[in-house]
Amino acid sequence: MTEIKVVENIMKLNDSVAAEVRALLAERGVFAVNLIGSPGSGKTTLLERVLPKLAPLSEMLVLEGDIATTRDAERIAAGGIEAVQITTGNACHIAAHLIKRSLAQCDLSGRKYLLVENVGNLVCPAEFDIGEHAKIVVLSVPEGDDKPLKYPLVFQTSALCVLTKIDLVPYTDFSIARFKQNVEAVHPGMTIIQTSLRQEGGFEEVAGWLRSERTRLGAAA
Amino acid sequence: MTEIKVVENIMKLNDSVAAEVRALLAERGVFAVNLIGSPGSGKTTLLERVLPKLAPLSEMLVLEGDIATTRDAERIAAGGIEAVQITTGNACHIAAHLIKRSLAQCDLSGRKYLLVENVGNLVCPAEFDIGEHAKIVVLSVPEGDDKPLKYPLVFQTSALCVLTKIDLVPYTDFSIARFKQNVEAVHPGMTIIQTSLRQEGGFEEVAGWLRSERTRLGAAA
Repeated sequence: MTEIKVVENIMKLNDSVAAEVRALLAERGVFAVNLIGSPGSGKTTLLERVLPKLAPLSEMLVLEGDIATTRDAERIAAGGIEAVQITTGNACHIAAHLIKRSLAQCDLSGRKYLLVENVGNLVCPAEFDIGEHAKIVVLSVPEGDDKPLKYPLVFQTSALCVLTKIDLVPYTDFSIARFKQNVEAVHPGMTIIQTSLRQEGGFEEVAGWLRSERTRLGAAA
Repeated sequence: MTEIKVVENIMKLNDSVAAEVRALLAERGVFAVNLIGSPGSGKTTLLERVLPKLAPLSEMLVLEGDIATTRDAERIAAGGIEAVQITTGNACHIAAHLIKRSLAQCDLSGRKYLLVENVGNLVCPAEFDIGEHAKIVVLSVPEGDDKPLKYPLVFQTSALCVLTKIDLVPYTDFSIARFKQNVEAVHPGMTIIQTSLRQEGGFEEVAGWLRSERTRLGAAA
């Protein structure tokens, strides 16, 4: 019973910091997404490919969450985009206070998009609001078409599903039709965009989704 | 500070239950492994292929950890092996008390191997002792050869690394040589076994490792 209360309190504290972050971003006109996916699902590559198609690079800020190393932030920065590495030590997710602290060190003027790449993990990051406007779940073909059923929360709470590495379908047992059925079973009507680095497909579509989501939420605010 | 103490207490409680589990298993002559890997890394497939090569099926017991669904236990049971599903709800790892509770419901007589497949997650399961004798980290080729550097703890604490889906190497940027270097950097001397379902390779070697580890630990005890 004590343990449960502690978890509740931690969650409440996180939610209140997340609300602060969301208010700050709204005030500055920044649309924020939280990318969640397993290690190696292709989150960093997605950012590398999508961001140059989205808007002037100066309008974007990327926060890279990792347990160790600064590799991902270096990859993004190499593309000319401002990137901040958040290393979480052993923590399996980014909590809202880490975003708040990172943003305090960043210049937000002229930024329209904040892209947070969470720690590679399909489980815990789905439970923590970090002040984003939308979560995006990134799943790669080799992970298997049954994953929406096995890890439902992240699919239920995300606005968009990006299915990566579709060029690997012929070499695996993955069925796109079965995957769509499984997504539909846990999140009816969910938008799915298929991408492939090797076939250079889908990235323009993801950029379009981000652009229209920003407009839609801006208009609604 | 309060939060940190709570975490410490939870960990201490977990460790003491894990010690109980380990003592029970030693008393019954059961060698236990804890399989850790991302969603879709091939943990269940590994068990399906390795166990028939290891020993009479009646000597084995499999505990399948999942957030949702009983699919994995059904897959193992379909192969004639006793399997118990542990569904963790939203919990991102198996804690020792779940193993203790599951074992209380199982008949351990005649068992020599307990194989626990943890929740698909490369992060949190590495932090929780569940009373196993050895951890095995399972990584699949599409996840990328940099993962030992990005998720060091699970590589440092595991006795064996199984690299799965090596038939996909030609279709990815994965370098076996670079992967070995990265493993060596975080866990010098770590044993790596490469497997492929499509090429039917490596499973006999994993069975051999389990057999000799059981003997080695039995002799040392």
